[in-house]
Amino acid sequence: MQPYRDMTHMIDAPAIRDAARRIAPHIRRTPLLHLPAAALGTPCDLTLKLELLQASGSFKTRGAFNRMLAGPLPAAGVVAASGGNHGAAVAYAARALGARAEIYVPEITGPAKLARIRAYGAHLVQGGATYDDARRASEARAAETGAMMVHAYDQPEVLIGQGTLALELEEDAPELTHVLVATGGGGLIGGMAAWYAGRADVVSVEPAACPTLHDALRAGAPTPAAVGGVAADSLGARQVGIAMFPIAQAFIHHAVLVPDEAILEARRRLWDACRLVVEPGGATALAALLCGAFTPPEGARVGIVLCGANTDPGSVG
Amino acid sequence: MQPYRDMTHMIDAPAIRDAARRIAPHIRRTPLLHLPAAALGTPCDLTLKLELLQASGSFKTRGAFNRMLAGPLPAAGVVAASGGNHGAAVAYAARALGARAEIYVPEITGPAKLARIRAYGAHLVQGGATYDDARRASEARAAETGAMMVHAYDQPEVLIGQGTLALELEEDAPELTHVLVATGGGGLIGGMAAWYAGRADVVSVEPAACPTLHDALRAGAPTPAAVGGVAADSLGARQVGIAMFPIAQAFIHHAVLVPDEAILEARRRLWDACRLVVEPGGATALAALLCGAFTPPEGARVGIVLCGANTDPGSVG
Repeated sequence: MQPYRDMTHMIDAPAIRDAARRIAPHIRRTPLLHLPAAALGTPCDLTLKLELLQASGSFKTRGAFNRMLAGPLPAAGVVAASGGNHGAAVAYAARALGARAEIYVPEITGPAKLARIRAYGAHLVQGGATYDDARRASEARAAETGAMMVHAYDQPEVLIGQGTLALELEEDAPELTHVLVATGGGGLIGGMAAWYAGRADVVSVEPAACPTLHDALRAGAPTPAAVGGVAADSLGARQVGIAMFPIAQAFIHHAVLVPDEAILEARRRLWDACRLVVEPGGATALAALLCGAFTPPEGARVGIVLCGANTDPGSVG
Repeated sequence: MQPYRDMTHMIDAPAIRDAARRIAPHIRRTPLLHLPAAALGTPCDLTLKLELLQASGSFKTRGAFNRMLAGPLPAAGVVAASGGNHGAAVAYAARALGARAEIYVPEITGPAKLARIRAYGAHLVQGGATYDDARRASEARAAETGAMMVHAYDQPEVLIGQGTLALELEEDAPELTHVLVATGGGGLIGGMAAWYAGRADVVSVEPAACPTLHDALRAGAPTPAAVGGVAADSLGARQVGIAMFPIAQAFIHHAVLVPDEAILEARRRLWDACRLVVEPGGATALAALLCGAFTPPEGARVGIVLCGANTDPGSVG
């Protein structure tokens, strides 16, 4: 996509503030739910950021709008590749902005996500085993048509857009010392870590079956990782973005892994105790507290981002 | 239950403020979601009060705690009758306070609500066609054992507890001119109307199949009404409470009816556009805007209470 260069200086608080103003007419300021430790059986009280209530059903809407509002849209419209949530967000944003959208998804993308993308009026192309296959197909298509490529995580405008979630969270819960975020390609956590810049400890949580950031931080560079498990359709990037990696090196000190069973248990508890339907990727950050992959220090004030709900609601039980 | 006397002077803002302090350690301050008109296809922008995220899955937890904290609990514990939500709330509160709970529910109470009541450790007795049958059985049982009767809607402490929802809503959204609330026995809307005391227009919304308040206001007194339709397990009281009725006469100027189809459409849109799973009774207030049963005047700032989610999450599609 991009030559390997450090774009960290572009992805910062002033850029995120500008983006928040730009996308405000199009996105929802999602609310917080404060819970005592007993509610979900966690080691401490929690503040949940209910980003699953975002337009299109995930945080991806923020980055999609910020990218598409950054410049004039070509007549060929936009092209994106996605496990599903980014595709739904780009389709949603394209409809709102009157643009054509073509969305490439892999075979693992489930029916709930496919239905969303179609319902927003995008042209859907499904093929290839993983997100990475869909990404290659989408890049070829964008080169052919001249459409704007809206990357799922590895463009500065996308990271900056996702960072607006952290701006809201810090405004509404300035007391937080730790914020747990699920990582796939790293667009959300990269944007959020750039916003916090160390003021809160941004903790990366990944399924053990998709350890992209965990492996990259060990290797010292983005590196291909396994893609599998229950959250692969939202966290199944092959490797983290090059734009987010220097941010992660600077600001992300904990990159933990959780087993699929903990993710499914987190989904069950969110329904059982809070009547929230969350997709596996959206429940992954909470899983780290349930299984002990991350133990907050004494006195920590912990925020959890519930980042998506594009799932079959009957699947949470 | 009570002799017919006007208890309006007991159900007022100071009492609601006291209750809010009393129950604060036990309940959640539920958040708001602000939506543009286009999100759900309503005639105006909306503020949703996400009371479906309350502990035990509905607003009933507020009144249950306020009643049970009002005096010493007898050794025999508490007894309640319920379509399901109040029973779950009383069971939840009894567990939290270390008390025994016996819950009487009618045959129409669905499996999601039964499972909740059992999960909170209460003794469950199911029988009779409607809530009213369960109520009679519960009163006989309370007289026999000396347990505290926690009425689903017709006790001052219960109304006062439910009124705390309005206190929160006015603090968090003081701009609202109209607040739409579903009515069953009238405990929630009675407590809320007592709080607002005319500062916002509190609009009652009922299924056409359960028109208790609509009929009572026409008749000039609580009067038995039909019990049926998709929301009968949460809004299926036989008649509104005598405690709430004078409050309704003073402050509720609109009591509208909606068809079951509008309630089901409201549920679908809440999932489709917001990823919120709401039970039929919890979606009833929104239905009034979708079907035109209530049309807000020009410039209105409208709040909608989504009051419960004790339902099968797979049933929203």
